[in-house]
Amino acid sequence: MNKRNIYLKMQSLDDAKSLWLNHFTLKTSQERISTVDASGRILAQPIFAKQSSPNFHAAAMDGIAVLAENTYGAHVDHPITLEPNQNAFFVNTGNVLPDNTNAVIMIENIIQTDANQIIIEAPAIPWQHVRKMGEDIVATEMLFPQNHIVTPYCVGAMLSGGVFFIDVKKKPRLLIIPTGNELLNWQSEKIASPPKGSIIESNSTMLKLCANDCGAVATDYQISPDDPDYLENLIHSHIKDFDMILLIGGSSAGDSDYTRAVIENAGQVLIHGVTIMPGKPVVLGDVQQKPVVGIPGYPVSAIVVFDQFIRPMIYNMLGTFDPMRKQLPVHLTRNMPSKLGIEEFIRVKLGKVGNKIVASALPRGAGAITTFTQADGIIRIPGHSEGFFANDRVDVELLRHESIIGNTIMAVGSHDNSLDILADLISHQYPDIKLASSHVGSLGGLIALKKGTCHVAGTHLLDTNDGSYNISYIRKYLSHVKVKLLHLLMREQGLIVCKSNPKNIHSISDLGRKDVQFINRQPGSGTRVLLDYLLQQHSIALDDISGYHTDEYTHMGVAVNVLSGAADVGLGIMSAARALDLTFIPIALEQYDLVISEEFWDTPMIQAFVEVIRSQIFQDRVLALGGYQTERTGQLINF
Amino acid sequence: MNKRNIYLKMQSLDDAKSLWLNHFTLKTSQERISTVDASGRILAQPIFAKQSSPNFHAAAMDGIAVLAENTYGAHVDHPITLEPNQNAFFVNTGNVLPDNTNAVIMIENIIQTDANQIIIEAPAIPWQHVRKMGEDIVATEMLFPQNHIVTPYCVGAMLSGGVFFIDVKKKPRLLIIPTGNELLNWQSEKIASPPKGSIIESNSTMLKLCANDCGAVATDYQISPDDPDYLENLIHSHIKDFDMILLIGGSSAGDSDYTRAVIENAGQVLIHGVTIMPGKPVVLGDVQQKPVVGIPGYPVSAIVVFDQFIRPMIYNMLGTFDPMRKQLPVHLTRNMPSKLGIEEFIRVKLGKVGNKIVASALPRGAGAITTFTQADGIIRIPGHSEGFFANDRVDVELLRHESIIGNTIMAVGSHDNSLDILADLISHQYPDIKLASSHVGSLGGLIALKKGTCHVAGTHLLDTNDGSYNISYIRKYLSHVKVKLLHLLMREQGLIVCKSNPKNIHSISDLGRKDVQFINRQPGSGTRVLLDYLLQQHSIALDDISGYHTDEYTHMGVAVNVLSGAADVGLGIMSAARALDLTFIPIALEQYDLVISEEFWDTPMIQAFVEVIRSQIFQDRVLALGGYQTERTGQLINF
Repeated sequence: MNKRNIYLKMQSLDDAKSLWLNHFTLKTSQERISTVDASGRILAQPIFAKQSSPNFHAAAMDGIAVLAENTYGAHVDHPITLEPNQNAFFVNTGNVLPDNTNAVIMIENIIQTDANQIIIEAPAIPWQHVRKMGEDIVATEMLFPQNHIVTPYCVGAMLSGGVFFIDVKKKPRLLIIPTGNELLNWQSEKIASPPKGSIIESNSTMLKLCANDCGAVATDYQISPDDPDYLENLIHSHIKDFDMILLIGGSSAGDSDYTRAVIENAGQVLIHGVTIMPGKPVVLGDVQQKPVVGIPGYPVSAIVVFDQFIRPMIYNMLGTFDPMRKQLPVHLTRNMPSKLGIEEFIRVKLGKVGNKIVASALPRGAGAITTFTQADGIIRIPGHSEGFFANDRVDVELLRHESIIGNTIMAVGSHDNSLDILADLISHQYPDIKLASSHVGSLGGLIALKKGTCHVAGTHLLDTNDGSYNISYIRKYLSHVKVKLLHLLMREQGLIVCKSNPKNIHSISDLGRKDVQFINRQPGSGTRVLLDYLLQQHSIALDDISGYHTDEYTHMGVAVNVLSGAADVGLGIMSAARALDLTFIPIALEQYDLVISEEFWDTPMIQAFVEVIRSQIFQDRVLALGGYQTERTGQLINF
Repeated sequence: MNKRNIYLKMQSLDDAKSLWLNHFTLKTSQERISTVDASGRILAQPIFAKQSSPNFHAAAMDGIAVLAENTYGAHVDHPITLEPNQNAFFVNTGNVLPDNTNAVIMIENIIQTDANQIIIEAPAIPWQHVRKMGEDIVATEMLFPQNHIVTPYCVGAMLSGGVFFIDVKKKPRLLIIPTGNELLNWQSEKIASPPKGSIIESNSTMLKLCANDCGAVATDYQISPDDPDYLENLIHSHIKDFDMILLIGGSSAGDSDYTRAVIENAGQVLIHGVTIMPGKPVVLGDVQQKPVVGIPGYPVSAIVVFDQFIRPMIYNMLGTFDPMRKQLPVHLTRNMPSKLGIEEFIRVKLGKVGNKIVASALPRGAGAITTFTQADGIIRIPGHSEGFFANDRVDVELLRHESIIGNTIMAVGSHDNSLDILADLISHQYPDIKLASSHVGSLGGLIALKKGTCHVAGTHLLDTNDGSYNISYIRKYLSHVKVKLLHLLMREQGLIVCKSNPKNIHSISDLGRKDVQFINRQPGSGTRVLLDYLLQQHSIALDDISGYHTDEYTHMGVAVNVLSGAADVGLGIMSAARALDLTFIPIALEQYDLVISEEFWDTPMIQAFVEVIRSQIFQDRVLALGGYQTERTGQLINF
C-alpha cells in the first residue's frame, strides 16, 4: 500500500506527442513482393514502367487498316476501291496494325461488294482509330512516386507496364500484451461461469485490429499476470522481433500497476501521465530504441491512447502521413462542460435535423466501449477551455462515412425495447437508413423536438387530471411546433423484483416498507410521472421510500439494480424484467406514442420509419417480448 | 467476317441498371464465424449481449470502499474514523466492490494514521466512484442491428458482452475469366520477349481486387482462348460454385467477340449495349438465375462497367447499401464537350487553387488505365447533355481522400522528366503533399496561371528577338498576375533519332530531306517555338518538313514515335532519348524555369516544393539523367 507509483510531471497532449514522435527515428525497411499482392501497401521506391502499353500500334476500332495516303481524295462522288490483303487489311480492335498502314477505317464506313474489293467514300487521316504504341504507358516513365499507396487500379497499371515485383514498406510489427490477474480469455474454460470480478479480455483483439487497419501487423499475446518480473522478461525476449510493444492495463497508480516500473527497468520511461481524458495514465517508454507503451485498461482510454500515440507512431515508421479523420462543423444539443487543464475526447452521436448537423454527447465513462460503437464522431475540448455551450458550433472528427449522418433518424425521449426492434428492422429493410435513439426520458424528448435537435420523440406522459396520455404535454411544451402524434403501442408497467419475489412485494403500498430498497427513474421520465401519480393515489410520502432519490436512465438500468441486489424493486416494463429473468408484477397499462415533427413527415427516411412501424413483423416481434398490446400500433392520433 | 454480333437495342444507363438490379433476387446466405475474425464483415442477425459488462459492481477509483451511510456527517471539523477490513476496504480500480459497501473514497482523500484506522473528513454519497454492474452493457440488450458493419470497436463490445461467435453474411463468390488469344499472363515464360501483338493480362487481377474491396471474394481464372464452346463449358461447370461470373473481353462486335453468343447459349442475354462511354459493349446476362457479365477488355471500360453494374450487384447480394463515393462541387479548367445520347465518365485531376477546387480532364481513351491511377475523381456527363463549359461548377465523384486535394501542388505547363523526380522527392520528404503535373506546353501553363487554375507553370519559351527565356512571355501573358520566377535547370534540346542513326541525321537542315519523317510537338510548347526559330535560322519552310503537322504532347511521346518507326526524328530532350535507348544529337541549351503565383509562395506546400528543388539530392538525381545543368537551380530570377 505504501509503495505507490506517482505520475511523472504531467504533460500536455501536444508536448507529449511532440516529445514522443521525435524521440524515435526508426523507419521500417522494405520488402519485395509480387505486384498482384500489393493492394493497400505503400511503395518504398518509385515505380518505373518496364514496357510500353500498348507496345505496338494497335487498331482502336474494328475495320480495315490502310495507309492514309492511299485514301486521299475519296468522296461519295469519287469512291476509291481498295483490295483486301493488298492495301486494306481487316483488323479487330486491339490487333497489331499491319506494316505500312497508319490508320483504321471503321467497319461501318466501308462497302464490301465482293471478296476482292472494298469501296470507301471518305479519306482516312493519318493515325485515326489507332492506339499508338505507348499511348497509355511509355517504358521508363515513372508510374508512381515512393510513398504512393497501391490501389487495385495501380496494380493494373503496373502489370500493364511490365512491373511484376515491387518494393513496398514492411509493415511495422506490434506485440500487444494484455496484463491483469482479473482478465479472462474468451476461449478459457472458465468463461461459462466466470469467477466474480473477472473481466473478459477484449482490448488486445480490438487494438490488434485497429493497428492492422493502419498498416501494421499486430500479434496479440496471451493474458499475462500482474507480475513485474514476468513482464520484464517478456519485453526482453520479444523486443528484438517487434518494432513496438504495447502493454495493456497496469499503467495507472494502483498497487498492482507495474507497467511503469517494468518499462523503467527494461529501458526508459519518457512520459507517465498526460493531461487527457480519457487516457491520462499512459506510460510512454523506450526499450532498446523501440517504443514500449503502457496503455490504460479501460477500453475507451485504450482507444484514445491508440489514436493519439500509437497510430501516428505507426505512420511515422512507415514514413507516410496519418490520414486524419474528416472534420465537420456541428451544433451541440446541450452544454458540454469540461475541466480546465484537461483535453477531453467526447464521443457524440450526429444527425441531420433540417439543415443543421446536431451532436449529442454520449456518456463520458472510460469504461464504456459502447460509447465508441455508438459514436459517429469525437469532439475535442482543449485543455485551455472549460467546455462549450448548447448551440455552439464546434468541429467534430468523423468516425463514420459522412453520408450516413444525413440518413439517420434521430429519436430522443423515453426508452422502450421496441425501439431496438425498430432499429433492426429498418436496418434490414432500408440498409442506408439508421435509427439512433437517445434515452433522456419523455419530457426530454419533447424538449429536444422543440429545440429542433431530433426528428422523433418517444413519450408516455400521463396527465394525472384526466388519465390521458401525451396530448396535454404536447400542447404545453410544443405549442409553436407542428407535430404528428403516432401511436406506437400499449405496454404494461409494473414492479420489477428479484426472482421469486423474496421480499413479498405485491403493490405500490409495499414501496413504503422500511425493509424495501427502491430504485427510481430520472425526473422527467414518464415512468417517474406514473410513480408519483400512483404514490399520490396510495397516499405514500416520497421521503418514506428508501431509494426514491437514486435514479437510473433506462428500464434495463433499473432491472440491473434489482438483479445485482443494489435495490429490491423498481418500476419498469415487463420486457426489461424478462430479459434479466426477474419477476414482474403488473401495475398499470400505459400508452407509448411517437411525436414526429411535421417538417420531416414526408421525408423518405420518416416514411420508411412509419412503414416499418405499421408492418406485421414489427408487431409480431413486439408481442413476442411480452407485456405489450399493438391493436392501434401505427395509427395517427388526432388532437 | 459476315457473321457479326449486332447490339441489342441500346439501353440508357438508368434503364439498364434498373432492369439488371431488379432481375435478380439472390441474397447471400449467412455463416457463423468467430467474433475476433469479424472486422469488416456485415451482420446477418442482430447481436444481443449475453453478459453484462461489468457483471459486478466495481471500484472506479483506487481508494477505500465504504457504505456511504457510515460516512454521513464527516467534516474537516468532525472527522470520522473507519477501520480497515471492518467498514473500510482498500480497493484498486476495477476491483469487485466488497459486500455491504456502495461507494468508494479516493485514496487521495483519506488519512491513514496507522494500520488500524483511516480518517475521512468528508462524506461519501451512495455509488460515488463505483462502476455499476451493466454500466457499459446490459445482458440481453441489442448491441447492433443486422446489416451493421463490424468495426474493431464492435469486436471489443461483442467480446465484452460475451458474444464470441456471430452470424455474418457470406461473401458473394465471383469468378473472373479473362478471355482473348492475345493475352499473356505475367507469370508466363514468354513474358521476357512477348510475341508482337500480345498484351499483358491485368484486368482480372484488378477487378478481383476491386470486388474484394466491396466485400466479395473473387477468384481469377486462367486466361481462356476466344473459343465459344470452351467458354460455354467453363460457365456450365462453374456456375453452381459461384454467385456471379465475369468474362473479360470479347463483349464487343468484332469477329472474335463471342461473349454475347456464349451467354446466349448458356442462358439469357438481358442487355447488350448501354449508352455509356467508356463501357458501351457490356453484355449483361442470366445463367441459372445468376448474373453472368461480359466486360469490355479495355481497362477503363472494365472499371466503369464494374462500378455501374457489378459493384451495386454485390451490395444487393449482401442486402446492404453501396457506400457511394463522396460528391464535391468543382470548377472546370476547360470546356468538356460530350456526345448527346451517351453518358460519359470523364476522369479528372483535382487541386485547390486559392478557394476553388479545379478539375482538369485526363485523356478520354478507354485503353488508358493510367487515367484511373492519376484521377482524383470522375465527372459524369449525362446522356441529355452536350457537355460543360470552362468555369462551370459541376459535381465530381471523389476517388481519393478529400484531404489530399488541398495538399496537391498543381503544376501545369511544359513537360520535363525532372518533374517526376520532384514528385518522388516531395512524396518521400512530405508524404502528405502531392505534386500533380499536367503537360499542356509552356504557353498553356502561363495561361492556366493567368486563369488561376494552377499554382506553378513550367516554361521554356525562347524570345527569338533577344535569345532570352520566359520573361517577355510573362510580361505579355501575365501582366495582371503577380508571380515569382524560379530557375529550375538548363537542359539540352536535340534531335532524337533511331539507335545508331541509320538515316544519318545530324542537323536541323536534315529535317527538310524528303526521306526523313518528322514528329512535332504541339503548338504553344517551348520545343515547338525553338524548332520554328531554328527552322527560320536555317531558312527551311515548314511545309518542306514531312510530319510537321503531326504532333505529340510530351518528349516521351516524341521518342516513342521514333522507337516505333512512326517517325525518323523529333526534337526533344536527352533524357527521353536515353530512356528508350535512342540516339541523341544535341542542338541547343535552353532554360527551363518555374513561374509561381506570388499568392501561394508562402504556403507550406510551395515552400516545401522550393526546398526540395534547392536540395542537393534533387540536383544529383537530375544530373544523373544526363543532358542537364543545375548551376543556378533554385535561384529566383529578377525581372
